[in-house]
Amino acid sequence: MKKIFTAILFLFCLQNLIAQSEDEKFIRTIYDEALASGQSYQMLEHLCAKIGARLSGSPAAAAAVEWSRQVMKSYGFDSVWLQPVMVPHWVRGQQETGRIVNSKKLGSLAVNICALGNSVGTGPTGVLANVVEVKSFDELKQLGEKAVKGKIVFFNRPMDPKVIPMFASYAGAVDQRGSGASEAAKYGAVGVVVRSMGVNLEDYPHTGSLRYAAGVPKIPAVAIATRHAELLSSLLKEDKEIKFYFETHCEMLPDVPSFNVIGELKGSEFPEEIIAVGGHLDSWDLGQGAHDDGAGCVQSIEVLRIFKALNHRPKRTIRAVMFMNEENGLRGGNEYASQAKLKNEKHIMAMESDRGGFTPRGFTMSATDEVKSKIRSWKPLLEPYGLTDFSLSGGGADIGPLGQQGVPLVGYLPDSQRYFSYHHTPEDTFDKVDKRELELGSASMAALIYLVDKYGLR
Amino acid sequence: MKKIFTAILFLFCLQNLIAQSEDEKFIRTIYDEALASGQSYQMLEHLCAKIGARLSGSPAAAAAVEWSRQVMKSYGFDSVWLQPVMVPHWVRGQQETGRIVNSKKLGSLAVNICALGNSVGTGPTGVLANVVEVKSFDELKQLGEKAVKGKIVFFNRPMDPKVIPMFASYAGAVDQRGSGASEAAKYGAVGVVVRSMGVNLEDYPHTGSLRYAAGVPKIPAVAIATRHAELLSSLLKEDKEIKFYFETHCEMLPDVPSFNVIGELKGSEFPEEIIAVGGHLDSWDLGQGAHDDGAGCVQSIEVLRIFKALNHRPKRTIRAVMFMNEENGLRGGNEYASQAKLKNEKHIMAMESDRGGFTPRGFTMSATDEVKSKIRSWKPLLEPYGLTDFSLSGGGADIGPLGQQGVPLVGYLPDSQRYFSYHHTPEDTFDKVDKRELELGSASMAALIYLVDKYGLR
Repeated sequence: MKKIFTAILFLFCLQNLIAQSEDEKFIRTIYDEALASGQSYQMLEHLCAKIGARLSGSPAAAAAVEWSRQVMKSYGFDSVWLQPVMVPHWVRGQQETGRIVNSKKLGSLAVNICALGNSVGTGPTGVLANVVEVKSFDELKQLGEKAVKGKIVFFNRPMDPKVIPMFASYAGAVDQRGSGASEAAKYGAVGVVVRSMGVNLEDYPHTGSLRYAAGVPKIPAVAIATRHAELLSSLLKEDKEIKFYFETHCEMLPDVPSFNVIGELKGSEFPEEIIAVGGHLDSWDLGQGAHDDGAGCVQSIEVLRIFKALNHRPKRTIRAVMFMNEENGLRGGNEYASQAKLKNEKHIMAMESDRGGFTPRGFTMSATDEVKSKIRSWKPLLEPYGLTDFSLSGGGADIGPLGQQGVPLVGYLPDSQRYFSYHHTPEDTFDKVDKRELELGSASMAALIYLVDKYGLR
Repeated sequence: MKKIFTAILFLFCLQNLIAQSEDEKFIRTIYDEALASGQSYQMLEHLCAKIGARLSGSPAAAAAVEWSRQVMKSYGFDSVWLQPVMVPHWVRGQQETGRIVNSKKLGSLAVNICALGNSVGTGPTGVLANVVEVKSFDELKQLGEKAVKGKIVFFNRPMDPKVIPMFASYAGAVDQRGSGASEAAKYGAVGVVVRSMGVNLEDYPHTGSLRYAAGVPKIPAVAIATRHAELLSSLLKEDKEIKFYFETHCEMLPDVPSFNVIGELKGSEFPEEIIAVGGHLDSWDLGQGAHDDGAGCVQSIEVLRIFKALNHRPKRTIRAVMFMNEENGLRGGNEYASQAKLKNEKHIMAMESDRGGFTPRGFTMSATDEVKSKIRSWKPLLEPYGLTDFSLSGGGADIGPLGQQGVPLVGYLPDSQRYFSYHHTPEDTFDKVDKRELELGSASMAALIYLVDKYGLR
């Protein structure tokens, strides 16, 4: 009896070892394909250089939809389709200007600003007012209407450079951009200037969306380059009578029809079980949307292309999803989840890449402990490729609505140190993306999806 | 008895826990200082923008010596001094040219080449000859004198893009650059064209040193941009009669006096025990020596500056060493080790940073198993900062001679994916270095040195 047991145990272990070595080999071929014959870099070059900035509702966003449809078709995915969704159509309009006025030390001088996404514009008369600098909503509240009414509120709490994961540093400052305008409007402010969400001293501002709270006047808001935020703050220390002037011509136009773009490889054994992998196709209007999030889009297409190139037919259905409108509305992510629910689709996992095309560090997870353990059990297969961090929670904005339906979420986690030098700025261009770092990302995503497809997540 | 034993064990564990939490805190302050008040980026900007390329023997190399001496003086290190060393003085001379000649398909066309460091020049008459393409020394040997005599040998084995750690990929190709000229000369070749040591297709060539073997004629050698290597190879496939022309004006001049630059914090308890940390001050003449190895130099100075700024007096003596002439002679590294031996100095560890100023990945080690285990035991303290890889062997070229004397060697290991896009090219400029990535490197080096200083390596 004991001998039989030992023999069974032995066979079981042997089978595990064989499977592991098979997985090791297949994952190696995934990386080989991505690094020696990868297409993600060429795809990204086209998306950035030929299409460029592609804010929701813009003609370029429509071009990006059609381009990604054609690309996925050309790779021979089993099906490729458009999923209609209405999106907001915010436009920046003509040249914005910002100026420090009446400074005793420097007189009047131009500074680099840009309107925040979704903001109302000032129109040609601009906004001219004294400036109240604050570091937090608490400080603003303490000052109250008496100090704030009729003024421009200058939110100047920097991203903390001492925080190592840059998304955590970002999370510690971005409330100023997202909610600053409405918070200031509560106390009668006439405009808002927000220190850009960049950790270094830079000459260019970072845009990004704000959300106006219901029942509060919508006041115009701009971001100011970090270097000029420092300047403004130091001038204000000596001279409270400084005024600030800014002029923006942005406006929110009526919604526009647009699409999520979806490509699919049909599963051979469990076609009704879906693994979605995506990025967002829209980008801010200032750069080329290279890291944010052209990278995530081409990496997601590349995952399916790699499987096709390796003649690997997945057991489950794998979908590449180019979500529309992550930046200033999340309409695509919401619509995808609504349709999934409506059609009773069964997503066993959704993965997003929206943290830039940098060198791999690991994966974030929003899932049950059981699912997390299962994914962490594959660490030995992934560590040789620099995927060592499986500790953080999170998925991605676009797949968030699927998460609310109980779908396990995974975020591809590249190194974050350079991201906030480019994020939402004119600097987010193709030349900032390294070919190998981008390719390693595609392969890393494909490797984990290969394992999830093969073994499931239960 | 058992109770006493348990109590002792408890106190011992408690003490360990307290020490660990102290270390955790102090390492945190190291990173805080580097990220919030760091000086490495400003130092590197000066070295790159004001001094620039600084090949051994050049006036700029002399400027870099004096600059680094002054910088370390200004930070108030306990002592700063110059260690004399004679260095080779190779100069590139006037503009180099390379041309594919007599191609049936494209006629004659210019390609991008540069002389390899230490190469003899062709002079104004250049070298014009038919081309034999090979991928290895074995293939060259098989062809033999009959096929090679009077020809230019074209070494065209690419760096393997499938290898993940880029230094391993480099190691698999760099024999062609280092020994190709002498190997080809053995069979009567008149010149050598080497595919650049870059993994991507690029328009610019990579220089780097060659070593002429004794007793073999010294023939001129150049590197060709990878994109033009592909072109030449494809033309040769259709047309064996193609000739190649190149003209270089480089030459080796007599040796020149130069220096290693050394700054020191004296140890409070064991001043005779030395921990050396360094990079090399010389760089190739084509770029600004930003990643290679301005980064390593300023990071090493920064380690000592951080300790000073935190009022941390080390137990052991910590030295920052700017080695001279790593690129084409290693005279500085050899001299430092000779002097250490002569003076009977006791180095308990030498650390080098010469893999670029990229985001941290870990440390390499060339040491006894005991030392390696000790360093690996500190992994939990270092992992939160991205230092997860302690698996590779190696130290650094400059500290290699110390290693031969039995000194444990450690190499700072940043991410390697982007390095070979810049290495030894005109692209190795300050703007390619990310501030935070550079600063995280300084802090990582300081953190490990703090632990080695506190606990020793026995």
